[in-house]
Amino acid sequence: MFDETPTDAWRMRYGADAPELPDLGRFLDHRSIRHFRPEPIPESTVAGLIAAAQSAATSSNLQLWSAVSVQNKERRAKIAHLCADQQHVRDAAWFFAFLIDHNRLRIAARAVGEEARGLDYTEFFVMALIDAALAAERLVCAAESLGIGICYIGALRNHPAEVTELLELPEGVFGAFGLCLGWPEQSLREDVKPRLPQEAVWFRERYGAGLSLGDYDQRMDAHYAERGLKPGVNWSMRSGKRVDEGHLTGREVLMEWLQGRGFMRR
Amino acid sequence: MFDETPTDAWRMRYGADAPELPDLGRFLDHRSIRHFRPEPIPESTVAGLIAAAQSAATSSNLQLWSAVSVQNKERRAKIAHLCADQQHVRDAAWFFAFLIDHNRLRIAARAVGEEARGLDYTEFFVMALIDAALAAERLVCAAESLGIGICYIGALRNHPAEVTELLELPEGVFGAFGLCLGWPEQSLREDVKPRLPQEAVWFRERYGAGLSLGDYDQRMDAHYAERGLKPGVNWSMRSGKRVDEGHLTGREVLMEWLQGRGFMRR
Repeated sequence: MFDETPTDAWRMRYGADAPELPDLGRFLDHRSIRHFRPEPIPESTVAGLIAAAQSAATSSNLQLWSAVSVQNKERRAKIAHLCADQQHVRDAAWFFAFLIDHNRLRIAARAVGEEARGLDYTEFFVMALIDAALAAERLVCAAESLGIGICYIGALRNHPAEVTELLELPEGVFGAFGLCLGWPEQSLREDVKPRLPQEAVWFRERYGAGLSLGDYDQRMDAHYAERGLKPGVNWSMRSGKRVDEGHLTGREVLMEWLQGRGFMRR
Repeated sequence: MFDETPTDAWRMRYGADAPELPDLGRFLDHRSIRHFRPEPIPESTVAGLIAAAQSAATSSNLQLWSAVSVQNKERRAKIAHLCADQQHVRDAAWFFAFLIDHNRLRIAARAVGEEARGLDYTEFFVMALIDAALAAERLVCAAESLGIGICYIGALRNHPAEVTELLELPEGVFGAFGLCLGWPEQSLREDVKPRLPQEAVWFRERYGAGLSLGDYDQRMDAHYAERGLKPGVNWSMRSGKRVDEGHLTGREVLMEWLQGRGFMRR
């Protein structure tokens, strides 16, 4: 697992030969792992990974994120159930809920006589969410460098009230996404997924010069077909359906929920 | 630069001896670099870094982010001016504006007869912002593994209208943060910054058991004093002031701006 060269990974991403690349180690061959071996990951390794997460940049050193690990078997089953019943949430050696966290700073600020009213603004929701995601992805890169597999769980947002109750989150704390960590099951190899051509996401000087998907729909159609999915339903079609109003899986109430918990009131 | 061992970096983060750590290479010793040498970073290296960014996880493979590099000297000076006039934005070998991008997918979805109305919801703002941050941080980890220094620029959000005009961003695209890349100036060494103790950010099973900053205010007070900042103004005090209503540097209008550009209307 994770043993492609950067050149191989480039070809799998873009369906084309790589230019001369620097040694980018394992950064190009990420894939989400949904089948884990039962071996544990030692607590000391996880402490190292949390240190990596905390080493990520954080706006003005405010550190507006936290994480809760859920290791108790019954509680893990409960949170897996809330996360669209995904089996890999049950099976992962470690599961973390990544939180955006205004609560810790609000308490600290009030203790020194500051009101921290800025936290009511959308800016500080955005800042905290960026902080949390940067921290998680540095943890992920560090974990993958050790051969650990990961899977992000957006479905942590499907049932915010129940997640809040289970994890005992106070006002000003929101479960933004989950993260599974575990040793990849080699026999059920997940593949590096093709991505949009670089020209479709990296623009020079101004947005959208020649905005085009290139051959991406065809490449994804082939990728899906190889995996036994219905042919002729390409990326544009699948993604278009995914962002249909009817596919929000409970998340259509997110703004209401967040404002009720003290976020983005202004 | 970036030459601390994980054990050294741990001590600088937490002011305490490290437990036995796995080989986490350069993941623990990130610092923001604000002084760059003038040497360029080759285009092929940057292409590799963009491939790393695109290799990050993306929710449902929707890839709801883009990046614009600003290399033209006059345009770079303009964007530096919009980003609180930060000199390192001018000096960096490369500057990227990281964008959350609903536009590309909306065009692709409409081309196959889908309306993509889900993108109006807060959920898809959250999803895109997470996508953009994960991509950026994987790029950053890859860059640092090559010895390149980075600095995120939250000030890209200070003047959203002017940034939108300069980068010609359409509706459904928002400049979330900037990113400077360059070779660190060794003589002006930026330090690894202390972080909150792990116990303050990593909770077990439920949030906040023993919520405490530990010795962090004292450690940060010492850190500031060593760098000639006013003593006795600790992290809680500085951070409390940072989240005061009066310190939003233009970002208090963020929700209004975002809704005007098609985000979070529901």
